[in-house]
Amino acid sequence: MIELQATITVRELAERAHAAAVALRSATPEQKTRAIQAMARGLLTHADRILEANARDIAAAKAAGMGSAKTDRLTLTEARLRDMAAGLKDVAALPDPIGQKFAAAEMPSGIHVERVRVPLGVILFIYEARPNTTADAAAICLKASNAIILRGGREAKESNSAIVSVLAEGLTSEGLPADAIQTVPFYDHESVNELLGMNGLIDLVIPRGGEALIRAVAQHSTIPVLKHFKGTCYVYVDADADLDMAEEIVFNSKVQRPAVCNASEHLLVHQAVADEFLPRMAERLNMVELRGDDASRQILPSIRAATEADWSEEYLDLIMGVKVVADVDEAIRHINTYSSNHTDTIVTGDEAAARHFLHDVDSATVLWNASTRMADGGQVGLGAEIGISTDKLHARGPMGVEELTSYKWVVIGTGQIRK
Amino acid sequence: MIELQATITVRELAERAHAAAVALRSATPEQKTRAIQAMARGLLTHADRILEANARDIAAAKAAGMGSAKTDRLTLTEARLRDMAAGLKDVAALPDPIGQKFAAAEMPSGIHVERVRVPLGVILFIYEARPNTTADAAAICLKASNAIILRGGREAKESNSAIVSVLAEGLTSEGLPADAIQTVPFYDHESVNELLGMNGLIDLVIPRGGEALIRAVAQHSTIPVLKHFKGTCYVYVDADADLDMAEEIVFNSKVQRPAVCNASEHLLVHQAVADEFLPRMAERLNMVELRGDDASRQILPSIRAATEADWSEEYLDLIMGVKVVADVDEAIRHINTYSSNHTDTIVTGDEAAARHFLHDVDSATVLWNASTRMADGGQVGLGAEIGISTDKLHARGPMGVEELTSYKWVVIGTGQIRK
Repeated sequence: MIELQATITVRELAERAHAAAVALRSATPEQKTRAIQAMARGLLTHADRILEANARDIAAAKAAGMGSAKTDRLTLTEARLRDMAAGLKDVAALPDPIGQKFAAAEMPSGIHVERVRVPLGVILFIYEARPNTTADAAAICLKASNAIILRGGREAKESNSAIVSVLAEGLTSEGLPADAIQTVPFYDHESVNELLGMNGLIDLVIPRGGEALIRAVAQHSTIPVLKHFKGTCYVYVDADADLDMAEEIVFNSKVQRPAVCNASEHLLVHQAVADEFLPRMAERLNMVELRGDDASRQILPSIRAATEADWSEEYLDLIMGVKVVADVDEAIRHINTYSSNHTDTIVTGDEAAARHFLHDVDSATVLWNASTRMADGGQVGLGAEIGISTDKLHARGPMGVEELTSYKWVVIGTGQIRK
Repeated sequence: MIELQATITVRELAERAHAAAVALRSATPEQKTRAIQAMARGLLTHADRILEANARDIAAAKAAGMGSAKTDRLTLTEARLRDMAAGLKDVAALPDPIGQKFAAAEMPSGIHVERVRVPLGVILFIYEARPNTTADAAAICLKASNAIILRGGREAKESNSAIVSVLAEGLTSEGLPADAIQTVPFYDHESVNELLGMNGLIDLVIPRGGEALIRAVAQHSTIPVLKHFKGTCYVYVDADADLDMAEEIVFNSKVQRPAVCNASEHLLVHQAVADEFLPRMAERLNMVELRGDDASRQILPSIRAATEADWSEEYLDLIMGVKVVADVDEAIRHINTYSSNHTDTIVTGDEAAARHFLHDVDSATVLWNASTRMADGGQVGLGAEIGISTDKLHARGPMGVEELTSYKWVVIGTGQIRK
C-alpha cells in the first residue's frame, strides 16, 4: 500500500508538539473547557465527513481481509459518534488539575513551600485501530494542558485524520494551538522508534493495545513509558461468601465484557464451599469454557484440565480457569504468583479474610464484594480514563486527568540562604 | 585487581531482595523505626570495624592514584559516622507512609473507593564511592518498606560491606529480613546490566552520580529509572531586586558548596541594575572565575567571554556565567533554553515578575528570594532525601520517603456489578 506523502519529518512533528505544549502552559481552564465542548459539537456537525473517512478505512480493511472483530472496532456509526461527543462533554466538565496547590507548609527557615500541579508536556499515545479512542485520549490530555501525538493503527488513518481535523478546529476556535493534537502520518517502525527516542521533546509514552505492542514500545523507548499490560484478573470466592452474591460477581466479572482488561479470567473457590458453589456457577456460566484443576474436576468431571500455563493466561474470551484452594492464604499466594497484578477481587462475609486479601494481594486494584469490572476510571470516580497502569511508578491502576500531570516545587522566601 | 569471589549469582541476589520485599509488606511501623534506631547505634558501637574497612579502601585507592577530592569523599571519620547515625535517627523519626489512605470516596454505585500507600518493592541504588550515602539510602528505603540493592563505587567496597553488615544486624534485631539491605559484590558492567534487566524482581533504579553514569543506566535499564541529572541552576536578579539580598543569595547559591547539584552555575541580571549590581557582585565573588556575555563584559571588562556552551554547563566549581537580560521574559526564555530544569531562582521585590517567573520557568524547583541551595529535602520539609529528580514522572525535585512508595486502589462493595 502506498503511504500518504509525509509533508513533515518526525522531528518537526515532535517539535511542533513541544511548542504547542509550551503555549498550553498559559491556557486558562475556561479555554480548555470550551475547546473540548467545541470538539464535542464538531464531532456531530461534521459527522458526515468523519463517517465518509471511516467508510474508506473499512473498505480498505475489508479488501485487505480484516476479521470481523477488528473491523467492528474500526467501525464508527452515528451512535458511536454521539457516545464520543458525550465522552468529551464529560471530560470538559471535570475539574481542572493544573495550578492546584498541595502540601503547602512554612519551614523553620521562614520559607513557604508548596507543590503546584503542572502539565507533563507532550504525550505520545500509541494505540490500535480504534478511532473512537482518538477523541477521548486527546481531550483527557488537553484537560491536563498536555499536547498529544496520536499514533493510532494504520487501518484507522483516514478516520483518525478526519477526527483530528475536527478536534483541531475546537482548539483554534479558543485560540489554542492546533499542534496540541496531532496524528502521526508515518506508519513504518523506524518513524515510531525515532519518536520513542525524542527525550526532551516528548515527556511520556502511553501504549495501549496487545501485549506484544506494549513490550515493543517499552523495549525501544528511552522516554518514560506508562504501561498497560495484560489483565489476568482473579475472583476468589471465600468460605464465608454469600453465594448468591458470588454468583453474580463471577458472572459479571467474566461475561459482561470478556474482551477487556478488567474482565476476570480465573476463579478460585475455597474448599469448604466448592461442592455447593461450583456446580451452580458452572450452570450459570454455561456459555463459558471452564478449565479446572484436579479438585474442581472431581466436582465438575466434564470440564477439561487446566495446565500450569492457564493460570497466567489472559483469554479475553469466554474461557475461565477454575481452582479449589485450601484457604485465603493459598488464594493470595496463587494470585501473587500468577495474576498480572491488575485487578483481583475477594467475595466473602468475613472481614478479617477480606482485610488480609486487600492488604496482601499486590495488585493495582483489589476489591471486596465487587466485580472486577468495577476497576474502571468511570466507576472509581476519575470521570474519564486514558488507561489502566500496571506499573508502580507515577500512576497505578485507572489513570485519569490528574495522572497526566507532574508538579513543581515553589519556594517563596525573604532572602533565605543555606547556613 | 582480583575480585572477591562472588558466592551468589546476580539473579539470586535479586531474588533474595524480592523475597525480602514481600516479607517487608508485613513489617510494622514500630519494627522499622526500631531497626533504623538500632542501625544508628550500630554505626557508633561498630565504628572501629567500619573505619578499619574504610582504611583498607583508602589505602587501595591511594595506591591506585586516586585524586584528593575523590579520596575525601571516600573517607569516613568518627565525626562522619556520628553524622550518619544522626541522619538515621532523623529517618527513624519520620512519619511512616505505608498504609496511609487518601482520596477516599463513596461512589454512586455504593462502592467505597480509597487509595492506600504501598511500598514500591525492590530499589536498585547505583552510586559512586561515597560510603556515607550507604546508610542513609538504606534507611530511607526501609522506612517505605522497600528492599534495597546497593551498588556503590568499587573503591568503597570494603567500607560498604562493613556498613551493610552493621545495618543487617539492625534488621535482624527486629525480626526483619537481612536481605532487605544488600550490597552488590559484582563490579563488572555485565553484572550491573543484568540487574538493569530484572523487571519483575526489581521495581525501580535510582542512579546518583555523574551525568555519564546516569545516562548509561538510563540507556541500559528496562526497569523504570528515576534520574537525577545535572543541576545547571540559575539566579536571576530582577530590576526590582533588593541588591543586598541579591548579593547574599548569589554568593550563597554559588559559593556555599559549589560541587553539589543545587549550587548555582549562572547569573542573569536585569539591564536596569546591571551597572550597579555586577561590580559589587564581582568583588564579592573574587574567588570565582566569571564568564560573561558582551553586555556584562562592558561593565566587567576583565572577565573572559562566555561561549554558547557555557550557558548549559554544570561547572561544580568556582566558575560562574554572567549575562545581562532585557527583562524577566528574556530571563525565563534563557533559563528554559539552557538550564537543566533542576532549580532556578528569581530575586525581586516585584510580585508580578516573581509570579510570572514561578509559573513559566519549567524547572523542578523554582524559588523567589531564596538561595538555590534551599532546594533540598531537608530544607523543604522531607526530613531526608534520597536524591533530586529531574524527571517529570512519579517524583520531581527533592525525593523523600513518600516518593519511594506506590499505591493501590482498594474497592469495598456490597455485591456491585457492572451494568
